[in-house]
Amino acid sequence: MKVLLTGGAGLVGNSITELLLSKGAEVFCVDDFSLGSQKHIEEFSNNPSYHFDQIDVSSEHWHTKFRNLKIDLIIHLAANSDISLGFKNPSMEFQRTCVTTLQSLKAAVDLRCPNFMFSSSSAVYGFNPPFPTTESCPNLHPVSNYGAAKLASEAFISSFVENYGLSAWVFRFGNVVGEKLTHGVIYDFIRKLQKNPKQLDVLGNGNQSKTYIEVKDCTRGILWAFEKSMPGKSHAERFQVFNLSTEGSTSVRKIAELTNEIVTKGNAKIHYGSESVGWVGDVPKTSLDTKKMQNLSWDPKLDSTSAVEQSIQKHYDWITKVQK
Amino acid sequence: MKVLLTGGAGLVGNSITELLLSKGAEVFCVDDFSLGSQKHIEEFSNNPSYHFDQIDVSSEHWHTKFRNLKIDLIIHLAANSDISLGFKNPSMEFQRTCVTTLQSLKAAVDLRCPNFMFSSSSAVYGFNPPFPTTESCPNLHPVSNYGAAKLASEAFISSFVENYGLSAWVFRFGNVVGEKLTHGVIYDFIRKLQKNPKQLDVLGNGNQSKTYIEVKDCTRGILWAFEKSMPGKSHAERFQVFNLSTEGSTSVRKIAELTNEIVTKGNAKIHYGSESVGWVGDVPKTSLDTKKMQNLSWDPKLDSTSAVEQSIQKHYDWITKVQK
Repeated sequence: MKVLLTGGAGLVGNSITELLLSKGAEVFCVDDFSLGSQKHIEEFSNNPSYHFDQIDVSSEHWHTKFRNLKIDLIIHLAANSDISLGFKNPSMEFQRTCVTTLQSLKAAVDLRCPNFMFSSSSAVYGFNPPFPTTESCPNLHPVSNYGAAKLASEAFISSFVENYGLSAWVFRFGNVVGEKLTHGVIYDFIRKLQKNPKQLDVLGNGNQSKTYIEVKDCTRGILWAFEKSMPGKSHAERFQVFNLSTEGSTSVRKIAELTNEIVTKGNAKIHYGSESVGWVGDVPKTSLDTKKMQNLSWDPKLDSTSAVEQSIQKHYDWITKVQK
Repeated sequence: MKVLLTGGAGLVGNSITELLLSKGAEVFCVDDFSLGSQKHIEEFSNNPSYHFDQIDVSSEHWHTKFRNLKIDLIIHLAANSDISLGFKNPSMEFQRTCVTTLQSLKAAVDLRCPNFMFSSSSAVYGFNPPFPTTESCPNLHPVSNYGAAKLASEAFISSFVENYGLSAWVFRFGNVVGEKLTHGVIYDFIRKLQKNPKQLDVLGNGNQSKTYIEVKDCTRGILWAFEKSMPGKSHAERFQVFNLSTEGSTSVRKIAELTNEIVTKGNAKIHYGSESVGWVGDVPKTSLDTKKMQNLSWDPKLDSTSAVEQSIQKHYDWITKVQK
C-alpha cells in the first residue's frame, strides 16, 4: 500500500509513519516544518520504504510529483495545531488547515487516490454539547478558529466524497499526547518547571477537564478503522466520522500535579488563575462517546489519565536527552 | 443605521437594499459583479443614502475605505450562488464563499462593527435529513461544494462570535426566487422556452422537490429577525441560526408546467430525464422547519408554489422588457 502523508513531521505523523512502515506500507511524507520538526522524521531516513519532501500543502498543485505513483491513501494531518495561535491569527489558521485540506482533496482527485483520511478534533463541538458527545451531536458551533477550520475542512471532505467519488474517514481526536509532543499543556508545564522548579503558573482555575489519548492508541485506531470499516456505496457509507479518544477525561489540575511530581518530585508550588477557561476559545470540558470505534472492536490501551501520565514521563525523558 | 452590504448587486442584495433604504438606513454596497449585475443597483443610484463601490471582498483589507464610518451591521451576501459551477471549480467556490466570509469577518472586527449577517443555505443539511429539517439537525454533511462552503463559513462565524465579540445571524435560505433572478431553475426554463417554444428539456426526472421563498419575504425576514431577536451574552445567544423559507415545497415538474403555461401557454412538450437528481451535488428534496422564525411572529406572505408562480411571471415580464 502506498500512503501519502501530509504533516508527517509532527507527533501523530511520527507515530503513524512508524506503524505504517511496520505494516509494510510505502510512505510518502510531506511537511513544511512550520510546526513539525526534523526530530520527528530522522529515525526513518534510512528506511527504503520512506520518502520525504519538504512541501507546503497549502500551495496549488503541491502533489504534482506524486503523479503516476498510484497512491492508495492520503492521510491529511497538515494543519495548524496551536489553538491560541489560531485566535491571534485567523488567516494563518484558515491557510494552514482549510486551504491545506482543499488542496489535499484536489490532490486526491487528481492522483485518483480513492481514500482520504483527516485529523479533525473534538473542538468542532463547541461549548457544552451533551456529554459524552456523539458524532451525530448537532452542537457543531465551534468556539475557536481552530475548531472552525476543522469543521470547514470536514464540510469540503463531505462534498468531495459525493462529487468526485472519494471515500473518507474523519477522526475527531481528543487531545493527543505522547513522547514527542510539539505543543500543548504537558509540553508547556514541563518547560515552565524546567525554567522555574519552584513555581508553576496555570492558565485558568485548573478545573478544565478534557479527554486525552496516547498517540500510539490514536494511530492504531486510525488504521484499525481503515481496515475494519469498508466504505459502502451511499454518501453516509463513504463519509465516515469517528470520535477517536478515550472515554474518560483528565483535569488540568491533575496534569499540573502529575507534571510537578515527575519533574520536581512535587516541590513546585502550583498557582492557579481564576478563569474557568485557559484562553479565548478554550472549551472547558470535553468528553467523547467512543462507541462507534468500540463497535469496530477497538479500544485504547491507555485511559485518559494514564495516557497523560505516561506522556509526561516519556516527553520529559526525551527532551532531557535531546537537550543534552 | 449604517449597513455595509457585500454582494449587494444580486437578487437578494437588490431587495434588501430597497427595504433598508425604505427604513431610513444608509447603505454602503459592494460587489465585484462576478455574479451580480449593474441592473440590480441602477435604481438606487440617485438615492443619497446609497453608496456603491466595485470591490472584491475576497481580497485582504477590502474594507479599508469604510473605516471611521461606524458601520452598525454587515450583511454578507457575497458568494458563489451557482451550485453546478461550484462542482466544476471547487477553488472558485472556496474563494468566493469561504474566503469572502473570512475577509468580511475580519472587516467586522477591524471596523468594530458589532453585528454580522450571513446568507447560508439549506444545502448545509446534505442528503435525507429528517423532514421538515430543523436548525439543530445533526445531518450537517453537505453534498455540494456550495453547501460545504456555506457550512465552512458558518463555522468561522461561530468562532468569531466567541473570539472577537460579534453577534451573528445566520440564515439558511430555501431557494430564493423573484423578479430579478440571476440563475436557477426558473431562470433556465424561461430562457430554454424562449429559444425553443416547442420543447423543454428538464435535467432529472422532475420529482426533485424543494422549498422556495419569494425574495421580498426573504429580506423582510432577515430584518425582522434582526429587530426581534436581540442577542444575549452567551455564545448560543449571539450566534443565531434561522431556517428562512416557506414550510412547503414545489417539484421541478410543477415549475416546468407553470413556466410552460406562462411562456408558451402550455404549448411546449416537456421532456424529463431519468435521474433522480438534476446534477452532481443536487439534493433531491428539501423541506425546512421554520418554527424558529415563526416564534418571532414572522410568516412569509407567499407559500412555496405561489412564490414560484409569481417569480416566473415577474421574471418573464422583466427580461422581456429588458431584452427589448
